[in-house]
Amino acid sequence: MATIRVPAEVPSPAQDSEAINHAFRGWGTDEKAIIRVLGKRNESQRKKIRESYREIYGKDLIDALTSELSGHFMRAVIQWTYDPAERDARLANKILKEKKKSVEKLKIIVEISCTHSPHHLISVRKAYCSLFDLSLEEHIASSVPFPLAKLLVALATSFRYDKDKVDAEVATIEAAMLREAMTKQQLDHDHVLYIVGTRSVFQLRATFAAYKQEYGNTIDKDVEGCHGDADLRSLLQMVILCIDSPEKHFAKVVYDSIEGFGTDEDTLTRAIVTRAEVDLMKVRGEYFNMYNSSMDNAIIGDVSGDYKDFLLTLLGSKI
Amino acid sequence: MATIRVPAEVPSPAQDSEAINHAFRGWGTDEKAIIRVLGKRNESQRKKIRESYREIYGKDLIDALTSELSGHFMRAVIQWTYDPAERDARLANKILKEKKKSVEKLKIIVEISCTHSPHHLISVRKAYCSLFDLSLEEHIASSVPFPLAKLLVALATSFRYDKDKVDAEVATIEAAMLREAMTKQQLDHDHVLYIVGTRSVFQLRATFAAYKQEYGNTIDKDVEGCHGDADLRSLLQMVILCIDSPEKHFAKVVYDSIEGFGTDEDTLTRAIVTRAEVDLMKVRGEYFNMYNSSMDNAIIGDVSGDYKDFLLTLLGSKI
Repeated sequence: MATIRVPAEVPSPAQDSEAINHAFRGWGTDEKAIIRVLGKRNESQRKKIRESYREIYGKDLIDALTSELSGHFMRAVIQWTYDPAERDARLANKILKEKKKSVEKLKIIVEISCTHSPHHLISVRKAYCSLFDLSLEEHIASSVPFPLAKLLVALATSFRYDKDKVDAEVATIEAAMLREAMTKQQLDHDHVLYIVGTRSVFQLRATFAAYKQEYGNTIDKDVEGCHGDADLRSLLQMVILCIDSPEKHFAKVVYDSIEGFGTDEDTLTRAIVTRAEVDLMKVRGEYFNMYNSSMDNAIIGDVSGDYKDFLLTLLGSKI
Repeated sequence: MATIRVPAEVPSPAQDSEAINHAFRGWGTDEKAIIRVLGKRNESQRKKIRESYREIYGKDLIDALTSELSGHFMRAVIQWTYDPAERDARLANKILKEKKKSVEKLKIIVEISCTHSPHHLISVRKAYCSLFDLSLEEHIASSVPFPLAKLLVALATSFRYDKDKVDAEVATIEAAMLREAMTKQQLDHDHVLYIVGTRSVFQLRATFAAYKQEYGNTIDKDVEGCHGDADLRSLLQMVILCIDSPEKHFAKVVYDSIEGFGTDEDTLTRAIVTRAEVDLMKVRGEYFNMYNSSMDNAIIGDVSGDYKDFLLTLLGSKI
C-alpha cells in the first residue's frame, strides 16, 4: 500500500551518505541526486543514512539539508528525513507553541492521534518529551481551551487495541450512548470522550455503522447538526473521518491543498510524506473515487521543479 | 536502592533452568533451591531463565512453578517471575474483571499508574492489549463508575515527562487551580484531572509544596475535608501520596498488611515483589521513620516458612 520504490539493490548507508555529500559539493547542489537517494529509501534506511552521515561528516544531515536546499523542496526533504515520530512531534509542537491556535491547526493533532498505529503514537509522545521537555498531553491540556483540550488529550493519550476483534453488542450500546449525547447536544459528554478516546479503530467503525443503521443518519451528519461550540463540532467530525477512513481523510487533505487558486504546499507535503510508506496507494484510489480524477495528475499540474520531482518520487513515479 | 542481591558470578540461564528443574524432581520440591536461584536474579536475568526454561523443557516456567509450589510462597515466586509489565497488567485485569470493584482495589490501579516510570506504564498498557484483547483504559472506562473512571483513565494513560525540571510559576498557578477546586468541592473538576494526570512527578511535588506554602494545609488534608464522593476522595488522596512519595506509600502498604491480627499476604507480596528492584531500600528507611521500627523484623515476625525465606531473600538477607 506504500508508494515509494526502494531499488532491489540498496547501497550501504555510508555510500548513500557519500552520494548525498557529493551532491552538496561544488557550485550549486545536485538536487536530483538527493531525490534519487533519499526519495527511494524506507524509514529504517533513512535512519541509518542519518546516523552514518553524522559519523562520517560530523554533522546532522537535517542541518546539511537545511543549508543546501531551499523552499518547499527543502521542507519536504527534511520532513521525509526526520524519523516519523520526531516529525510528528515537531509538527504537534509547532501548533501547540502558537499563541492563537486555529481549529484548522488543531485538526492536525487529531490527525496525528487518530491515523497512525498505537505504537507510532507512543513513539511520538516519547519523542515529544525528549525534544521539548514536557509531555504532549500536558502541552495540550495547558495551552488549548477546554473542552477542545479534553477531546485532544483523550485522543493523544490513547493506546488503542489494534486487532480487528469487534463486539457487536458494545457497538449497539455505545451507538446509543453517542446518540443520546447528540440528542442532548452534549458533544463533550464524558461518554463521547471515552468512547472515541479509548475504543479500537475497528470497534469504533462498528459503532459508527450501528449508529447509522439504528438512527438513519451518519454520526458525522448528526454532529454537524448539533448546536454549541463550532470548533468542538469540527474537531469531532475530524475524529470520525480519521477513524472511519484515514485514506479518505488524506485524499481530502491532498484535494483541499491543491484545489482552487494557489497551492498549500505545507499541507500537501504533510499528506504525501506522512502516507508514502503507509497507505498512499489507497489514498490515491480514494481520491479517484471521491473526485473522479487522478491525484497524481492533479499534483503534477499544481507544483513544479525539484519539489514536484520529489513528491512524484514518493508517489512511485519513475522520474 | 534495590534490595535483591545478585551474586558476582551468575550461572547461565540454561544452568539456572536446570537447577530449577532439578529442584522439581523426586519426592517433594526443593523450595530452597528455587529461592536460591530466582530470588537472586534481576529482571532481565529472570526473563532469560523463563525463555531458556521453555526452550529446554518445552513448557512455561510459570506453569511449572504453579504445579510444583503452593500457597503464598507459590504466588510470590510467580509474581516475581513474571515480566514486571505483565505482572502489573495481570494485576490490573484481575481488579477490573471483578463485578464489584472496591475502592481499595481501585487504589491498586492508582499505584500501578503513579509509582512506576512512564516507560514501565507504557509497557503495562502494551502487555494489557496483548494479554486481554482490549486496552487498559477502555477496560477502566467501560467498567468503573464515573467520576472514578475519569481519574483512573487520566492516570493510566499518562506518559509523564520524567526529568526533574520544574516551573515554579506553573506550580503556583496550578496550586491555585487545585485550591479553587477544593473550595468549590469539585474534586473531579477538569483542572484537577489534567493537572494530576499530565504533569510530571517533579512538577506535581512542587505544586503540592506551593499549595501548602500558600494555603497552610497540605492538599491531602484539604481533599480529606471535601464533601461528596468518598471513593473519589480516597483515590485522590492515594494519587497525592503515590506521587509525593512512593516510598512512604509502600511503607504504609507493608505496615497495613502486617499490622493487627492476621496478615494480608497478597498485599505484602505485592509491595515487596514490586519494589525489590526499584527502591525497597528507601521504603525500609521510610518505614523506620514512620513507624519507628524495623520493616524486616516486622515481616519476620509475621510470616513463616518458604514464603518468609523468599521475602527475606528479596529484602537482601543472607539466608
